[in-house]
Amino acid sequence: MKMDLQITVIGAGHGGKSMAGDLALRGYAVRLYNRHYENVEEIIARGGIEVTLEDGRLGFGRIPVVTDDIARALDSADIALVVVPASGHRDIALACAPHLKDGQIIVLNPGRTGGAFEFRNTLQESGCTADVIIAEAETFIFASRSIGPAQAHIFRRKNTVPLAALPATRTPDVLDILQEIYPQFIAAPNVLHTSLNNMGAVFHPALTLLNAGWIEATGGDFEFYVEGVTPSTAHVLERMDRERVTVAMAMDVRAQTAREWLSRAYSAHGENLYEAIHDNPGYKGIMAPRQIRHRYIFEDVPFSLVPISELGRRFGVDVWAIDAMIQLASVIADTDYRYRGRTLEKMGLVGLSLAEITRLVNTGITEPPEIAETEAVNNRP
Amino acid sequence: MKMDLQITVIGAGHGGKSMAGDLALRGYAVRLYNRHYENVEEIIARGGIEVTLEDGRLGFGRIPVVTDDIARALDSADIALVVVPASGHRDIALACAPHLKDGQIIVLNPGRTGGAFEFRNTLQESGCTADVIIAEAETFIFASRSIGPAQAHIFRRKNTVPLAALPATRTPDVLDILQEIYPQFIAAPNVLHTSLNNMGAVFHPALTLLNAGWIEATGGDFEFYVEGVTPSTAHVLERMDRERVTVAMAMDVRAQTAREWLSRAYSAHGENLYEAIHDNPGYKGIMAPRQIRHRYIFEDVPFSLVPISELGRRFGVDVWAIDAMIQLASVIADTDYRYRGRTLEKMGLVGLSLAEITRLVNTGITEPPEIAETEAVNNRP
Repeated sequence: MKMDLQITVIGAGHGGKSMAGDLALRGYAVRLYNRHYENVEEIIARGGIEVTLEDGRLGFGRIPVVTDDIARALDSADIALVVVPASGHRDIALACAPHLKDGQIIVLNPGRTGGAFEFRNTLQESGCTADVIIAEAETFIFASRSIGPAQAHIFRRKNTVPLAALPATRTPDVLDILQEIYPQFIAAPNVLHTSLNNMGAVFHPALTLLNAGWIEATGGDFEFYVEGVTPSTAHVLERMDRERVTVAMAMDVRAQTAREWLSRAYSAHGENLYEAIHDNPGYKGIMAPRQIRHRYIFEDVPFSLVPISELGRRFGVDVWAIDAMIQLASVIADTDYRYRGRTLEKMGLVGLSLAEITRLVNTGITEPPEIAETEAVNNRP
Repeated sequence: MKMDLQITVIGAGHGGKSMAGDLALRGYAVRLYNRHYENVEEIIARGGIEVTLEDGRLGFGRIPVVTDDIARALDSADIALVVVPASGHRDIALACAPHLKDGQIIVLNPGRTGGAFEFRNTLQESGCTADVIIAEAETFIFASRSIGPAQAHIFRRKNTVPLAALPATRTPDVLDILQEIYPQFIAAPNVLHTSLNNMGAVFHPALTLLNAGWIEATGGDFEFYVEGVTPSTAHVLERMDRERVTVAMAMDVRAQTAREWLSRAYSAHGENLYEAIHDNPGYKGIMAPRQIRHRYIFEDVPFSLVPISELGRRFGVDVWAIDAMIQLASVIADTDYRYRGRTLEKMGLVGLSLAEITRLVNTGITEPPEIAETEAVNNRP
């Protein structure tokens, strides 16, 4: 055990507090960063975070450095665990850029769709030349909640969470380090896999929008999956899911369907998605969001659905249902999520062919493929 | 009173049974047509329709001719009142085409959006040369329901219903005849007005889709307007309504906004559409549709939203919210409503400029405007 591992948790929301508290409780040297001092004042005052664990036990994780100063947060960090909504990834990258050092590892928990691409592209735009490794997790490792200014509750730890570095050649290095603190992380083939196996993209926005009246009329007082998933709403999910998996296929990625995922992760089965969702006891008791202004819309639409749609359009896949959802969410929220979301441009993928993107995610090489070089050589007099 | 007026009611659904029963009860010679014999068997057996009137009184309207033979239904008719879902307008036009005679009047109750255009275009395609007048009502004249195979219930008669003939020069002729049987009909400037003042287009599909989960989970057991119209769902209605009125404006038509309509028709007021809808006591007690497979989707999307969207695209108006709704409805119903709906082509409007459409609706003239003729003359050697 190299307990001298220096870990920085970036973000002190639901996930960040849980992760920082959990790691501190387990004896790791944790630094916690939040860009707003007010949000961590109470943690500073108490000197750490009180964590309620899965079995109900209470623990106190002492966190010596809690700061809104990113330079101090990153100084001497081996690994930075970024636990902020995807809407914050770009800002965090901009803040980190001047302070990163060779060899540091950044893990987005999770990346949603295209998080590693956007982080990498933002660092490059900022002129950051440090040789850092950027990785993204497919989903957040806990089911957890912030239950007070310096309190977090971890309900459940997921058994396995796929993770990939950008490029994939660096994934083993990241897992090597993470192995010690979170052995649940396993290697995904590359970030296209972690990005395109985004199940929240399929479930969250559609169920929120197709139950919008119900959510607002009752303040979300119904079971989101048990009651909100009906034959028609499930049918929309199924269509969106097929589009997501088809976009992946067009990019040579075999993504899991939502039904495969329900079957593997929850042993929930059914003839169709409606049946499979209702076969999952894990959904029982999960209530609907209390309002439409919820991360299921303002995070999952621009940072999950938009990048999937953008990749679909780029590689000739009809993303009709996904686009309908992006438009409807934009209307309801009075914004333009396509513009504000993770476009090809923000991911740094404009003008790249599929072969070039594949090469980038697998090897990190962004120059034109060898054939062009060979030709250039052959063309020499 | 020319009680010798020969009226044919086409369609024996909710509206058709109410209209035929009401007219028969009032002593008019009514023929009733339905394309499926089974649907009118009971009416034939009883010799008419039992009508429950607004004040609860029961009456029996004797209908001597009830038939599935369109030739017999139209023979000697002065006026044909078409009371079928807009999805049936084209089929009715195809069926009528060989049997129409000069001077007959056809009134679509209502036309939804573009009904008169589609009816006229279908007759032309069928080679019908009879000089008939086609008119469309802005909305159906009753609030009524079929309550049995030969029973109808009229809850309320609307005070005024705008109507226009295609072309508008014939509107006075139609109102002259209708005056006697339904004095509620008043002249709209032309069919663009009746078509673009389609309030159902704005209210029905969006409220059904944004409450889809609730409708299916409860079988529609909630108040559609009182509960289903929330700040967010009303916001979507408001955006769609603005698009509809902007499409009208681009075509030189000053359509009523939904708020103006609520204010005039129901004296319901508010700072925004949410408030105005909740200020309308007329909405109290109206329950949601029992299922998603409802005319609010399969009629209002292809025959109200699609033609508005088509006209918007043609005349440069952004119909983002309306298009999102068309796409989402298509996904949920597993069909392509834009393809199946009332396109410019089906309305016979492809390639017509705004000036040409305006001239068509106002005067019936479809030749190029005079300037072109003059040029042609001048170009002669």
